Amino acid sequence: MSTSHLDALIDALRKLPGVGVKSAQRMAFHLLQHDRGGAQQIARALEQAVQSVRHCSRCHTFTDDEVCAICRDTTRDARQLCVVETPADQAALERTGSYRGYYYVLMGRISPLDGVGASALGASGLLVRASDGQVEEVILATSFTAEGEATAHVLAEGLKARGLKVTRLARGVPAGSELEYVDLSTIAHALVDRR
Amino acid sequence: MSTSHLDALIDALRKLPGVGVKSAQRMAFHLLQHDRGGAQQIARALEQAVQSVRHCSRCHTFTDDEVCAICRDTTRDARQLCVVETPADQAALERTGSYRGYYYVLMGRISPLDGVGASALGASGLLVRASDGQVEEVILATSFTAEGEATAHVLAEGLKARGLKVTRLARGVPAGSELEYVDLSTIAHALVDRR
Repeated sequence: MSTSHLDALIDALRKLPGVGVKSAQRMAFHLLQHDRGGAQQIARALEQAVQSVRHCSRCHTFTDDEVCAICRDTTRDARQLCVVETPADQAALERTGSYRGYYYVLMGRISPLDGVGASALGASGLLVRASDGQVEEVILATSFTAEGEATAHVLAEGLKARGLKVTRLARGVPAGSELEYVDLSTIAHALVDRR
Repeated sequence: MSTSHLDALIDALRKLPGVGVKSAQRMAFHLLQHDRGGAQQIARALEQAVQSVRHCSRCHTFTDDEVCAICRDTTRDARQLCVVETPADQAALERTGSYRGYYYVLMGRISPLDGVGASALGASGLLVRASDGQVEEVILATSFTAEGEATAHVLAEGLKARGLKVTRLARGVPAGSELEYVDLSTIAHALVDRR
């Protein structure tokens, strides 16, 4: 453990979210002992991503280009704009195959405890994007957590003030679940939103 | 998510032990969104560690040099050699301040399920090291798990065949624990090894 380059690596790996000193040690030992090729692959991927990945000028998601592939796709419905928190959420919606509009990716959510307010979230960018004259409906698909709900609430106010129709993903019982095992808050919401 | 460099980064991060696709995504988003400096630090640390870190020619631990700092320390007791599984275990023993001999770091343990036998573990390196004419006692400090015990058993046979005194760390009740909450196997061992 008196190894300067090993210690530097363990220190650096602690920059990863959710990785403490024990995990960092385990990762460093594993890579150096069993997968030095993997270590170099990670190093190269990090360098390239830091150099190349930027935000799409239209939807704010990560992309290598000025405008991302989805925003470049002119076959989509320009009247709908779906607001999501992360590229992973966007990918989940895309996988459903049931949405053909465009997206705006917040890259986070309002989190007062972490000092992330509406301005830090780039809410103004969303207002500009939604005011392009083509968007008619903004679908808020932020998480159904306290922070996600707060984010949706704040964004809805700004969007409605601009005369846009604002909707929210339906809350309800997940597909494939037995009512017995669904939490009460979800059942209550599903009752209220029954159709 | 249609971003080639981002996808490449997520793929690469999955090379880390215990990191699946969800964690890799979270790590990539965090670094690109909040800590690009940290990403570059990790990349540099990986490159440098892969280039510089090798095994100590005496004790097999990771080091930047031909021989590690502990093995270079001539004030230590050359009659004792303590066998540990990882540099982290070695560091734990060093922190106790109660051991002044040298170490041999196995960099793993015997694990038949993972195809790691005594030879893959470099047990022959230990036999050579322990046969330097100065070592009188080999203290086996592998884990008290099934695999650690098996490792100790196999190593002890080879070492005893060379006429070396072989000891094992004492099993017993951990310091600060109330007997009521200690598992039965530990209490049974502490009874047998009572002094």
